[in-house]
Amino acid sequence: MSLSTELRIDAGRLKADFEALAAIGGTPEGGVHRPALEEHHIAARRWFRERALESRLDVSVDQAGNHSAVLRCPQPAAKTLLLGSHLDSVPYGGRFDGALGVLAALEVLRTVRDARLSLPVHLEAIDFTDEEGTNIGLLGSRALAGALTQEELASPRGGRRDWLEKLRRSGLSDAGILEARREPARLTAYLELHIEQGTALETAAADIGVVSSIAGIASMRISYHGRADHAGTTGMDERLDASQGAAAFITQAHALVSGSFPGCVFNVGRMSLEPGAFNIVPAEATLWVEFRAPASDILQRMRLALDRLGAGIAEELGLSYRSEALDLQRPVDCDAGVQRAFRGACETLGLRFITMVSRAGHDAMVLAGICPAGMIFVPSTGGSHSWRESADWADCVNGANALLQAALRLAHPAQLD
Amino acid sequence: MSLSTELRIDAGRLKADFEALAAIGGTPEGGVHRPALEEHHIAARRWFRERALESRLDVSVDQAGNHSAVLRCPQPAAKTLLLGSHLDSVPYGGRFDGALGVLAALEVLRTVRDARLSLPVHLEAIDFTDEEGTNIGLLGSRALAGALTQEELASPRGGRRDWLEKLRRSGLSDAGILEARREPARLTAYLELHIEQGTALETAAADIGVVSSIAGIASMRISYHGRADHAGTTGMDERLDASQGAAAFITQAHALVSGSFPGCVFNVGRMSLEPGAFNIVPAEATLWVEFRAPASDILQRMRLALDRLGAGIAEELGLSYRSEALDLQRPVDCDAGVQRAFRGACETLGLRFITMVSRAGHDAMVLAGICPAGMIFVPSTGGSHSWRESADWADCVNGANALLQAALRLAHPAQLD
Repeated sequence: MSLSTELRIDAGRLKADFEALAAIGGTPEGGVHRPALEEHHIAARRWFRERALESRLDVSVDQAGNHSAVLRCPQPAAKTLLLGSHLDSVPYGGRFDGALGVLAALEVLRTVRDARLSLPVHLEAIDFTDEEGTNIGLLGSRALAGALTQEELASPRGGRRDWLEKLRRSGLSDAGILEARREPARLTAYLELHIEQGTALETAAADIGVVSSIAGIASMRISYHGRADHAGTTGMDERLDASQGAAAFITQAHALVSGSFPGCVFNVGRMSLEPGAFNIVPAEATLWVEFRAPASDILQRMRLALDRLGAGIAEELGLSYRSEALDLQRPVDCDAGVQRAFRGACETLGLRFITMVSRAGHDAMVLAGICPAGMIFVPSTGGSHSWRESADWADCVNGANALLQAALRLAHPAQLD
Repeated sequence: MSLSTELRIDAGRLKADFEALAAIGGTPEGGVHRPALEEHHIAARRWFRERALESRLDVSVDQAGNHSAVLRCPQPAAKTLLLGSHLDSVPYGGRFDGALGVLAALEVLRTVRDARLSLPVHLEAIDFTDEEGTNIGLLGSRALAGALTQEELASPRGGRRDWLEKLRRSGLSDAGILEARREPARLTAYLELHIEQGTALETAAADIGVVSSIAGIASMRISYHGRADHAGTTGMDERLDASQGAAAFITQAHALVSGSFPGCVFNVGRMSLEPGAFNIVPAEATLWVEFRAPASDILQRMRLALDRLGAGIAEELGLSYRSEALDLQRPVDCDAGVQRAFRGACETLGLRFITMVSRAGHDAMVLAGICPAGMIFVPSTGGSHSWRESADWADCVNGANALLQAALRLAHPAQLD
C-alpha cells in the first residue's frame, strides 16, 4: 500500500470544480440558492453529470433522483463503497454545505482512476436528493435506505401540487422513489466529508473532526392555555395570560439545557399568541421546540425535564399545559471501523484530528441504518445555512485527502471490523 | 320636577327589545356575531329603525351610517341631548356590549314621549358605526366629531376591497363619512350606559359606576434582533437568540406594570419569531404591546419605563432593540356636570354608586372632544368580548333609569356648568 498512502487528490482540479459549481445558483453575496429540484439544483446536477462523464466515470441516476459518478471495479459482483453528500442548498444558503462533500467524492474517484489503482470495490460518488428538506428531509438517502413512507410523500412541505410539478420536471415519481431502495449487502460503507458548521474544530485547533455520533433530534409543540380577557378592563392580577407561561418557559428551558445538559442544545424557533389582538389577553401560546442530544437516553431525559418544567410553570401561573411530540430522529453512532479508517488517514496525512459529535443531521445518519457509515468535518466559519459560511481552502483539501485515504483503507474489506 | 324624578323606564318593554335584538346574529352559545357593516349588523340596524318608527320616533341616518331615533322638541332651534352606544359587536362577542346602551337610550326616549314631558332639547338615541373597529375603530363617533382622516379610511383593517363592498351595501362612501361632522354647538351633552366589563363594581358591591375618566391607550411594536444560527451546531452559549429578549421582556414588563403602575394595564397580544423554523435560532422577535393609564403623564412614564426595560434587556443579552410607537388615544376626563347629573340620578333612585376610571375605550371618549360627555357602568360578569359576558337584568334596569334621570337633569341647560 505504499503507493496508495502517497496518493493525493488534485487540489487545483477540485478548486476549479468548486468554483464552477458555486456559480450555479450563485447569489450576489457569495452564497448559493439551490433548493432541491428547483431550477438551479437541476442545473447543478446536469453540471455534475457532465463533469463525471468528462472524467470518464459512469453516471447513474436512481428512482429517487440521486445522482452518482461511478468508478467500476472489473469484478461486477464487487460491493460498492459510497462517498458523497448533496448538491442542494437551503434557500439562499452557502456554497460549502453539501457541495464540498460531493466534489471531494468525485475528486477521490478521479484520483483513483488517474492512478490506475485497482480496487476490489466499485467506488461511487453520490449526490443525495433534498438533504436539506425543502420538500422532504433527507429524501434521497432515506429512499436509498428504504426508510421513506407513502405518508411522507403525501405531505411535502410546499404542498402536493408544487411537489408533483417538481417530480415531473426531474422525471421522478412517488412510486419510483419508494422503489429506490438499494440492497444493503451490496454496500461496503458510506463516507461523507462536510464542513463543521460549528466552532469545535477552531477551538481545538484541529484540522479534521472524526464524527463519533450524530446527535438525535426531537421536536415538540407545547402550549399554554389561559383566558382571553379584555386587556383594558381586566386588572393585571386577574388575568390568566398564556404569554406569561410561554415567556417563563423560554427563559427557564434555556437555563435548564445550558446548565444540566452539557453538549446538548434547545431551540424555540417559532411561537404564536392567540387570538392575536393588541387588546385581548392571550388565551393560548404555542411554542415549537426542538432539542438535540448525542445519545438516546439523554434525549429522553431532556424531553422529560422540559415537560416537567413546562407543566410546573403552568401550575404556578394557573394555566393549563399541553405538549405533543413531533419528529424524532434517534442519535446514530458512526461505525467504529469507519472512524478508525478516518483516524488512520489523518495519521498518514499528518493532520490533527479530534473525535466529536455532530449536532447537525446528515445523510450519514440515514446510511448508518443500512451499512457502516461515518463522517469527517473540516473547520468552517460564518455559521451555517448562510452565504457567510466559509472554509479555508487548505482545510478543504485536507478533508478531501482524508476522504481519499480512508476510502483506500476501507476498499479492502479486511479494514472493517 | 316632581313628576320627572318619579319617571321610570318600562323594564318589560326594554327586556323584550333586548331579547329580540340578541336574536339578530345570535350564536348557539348565547352571544352575538354582528361585526360592523356585515349582514347581522345591517339586520340589527334595520330592526332598530323599525322599533323607532313603531314607537313614533323619527329616524335619522347620517353619512357615516350612524343610526338615530329622535324625539324632537317643538322648538326647531333647540340643541340635542345625545344618548347612545353601538349595535355592532366584535366577532362572536356578547349580547350586552353596546346593545344595552342603545336600547336603554331608545327606552329613555319612549319613556319621555309616553309621559308627554316637554323638554327644551331634542333627545336622540344614537347607534354609532363600528365602535368595535372591525374596519376602523370608533368610526361613527369620530366621523361625527370630525376626527377621522382620509388616511385612516384608506387602510381599513380588512383591506380596501372588503371595505368598499361594505360601504356599497350600506349606501355609504368615504367622501360622505368625511362630511358627517356635526356642529358641536348644537349638542348639549352625550351620555352612555355600558356594562363594566371588569370587576370593580362587583368588588365594591355598587349598582352603578360613574366614570370620571377614560384611560388613555398607547400601543407600540418592539423587536429584538440577534443572529439566525443553526440550532444544532451552535452551542447554547454562542447564540444571539432574539426569543430570549422577548421572553425576558414579557416577564419583566408584567412585573414592572403590576408593581409600579397601580391601576394601569399592559398586554402583549401578539408575537412572532423569525425566520420561524424549528432548526434556526430566532434572529428577530417582534412583540405587539398595548398599555393603558388613566392620565397622560402616567401613560408617558409607562412608555419610557417599558422602553428603558426593553433596551436594558437587549444590552444584557447582546441583542439589539427597536421600538416604534403606534396608536395613541389620550386619556379623557368625563365632564363634571355630566358626572354630577349621574350622581344625582343615582341618589334620586337610591342606587349605590362609585366613581371609577374606564380602562376600555368607548365612543364617549371621542364625544368628550366636542361636547360634555360622560358614562355610567352597570356590573357585569364573564369578562368582555365573549359570549360569556353577562349582566343581571335588575342592574340593567337600574342603569337605564339612571340614564333617564341624568338625561332629564341635563335637558335643562342650567344643570350643566
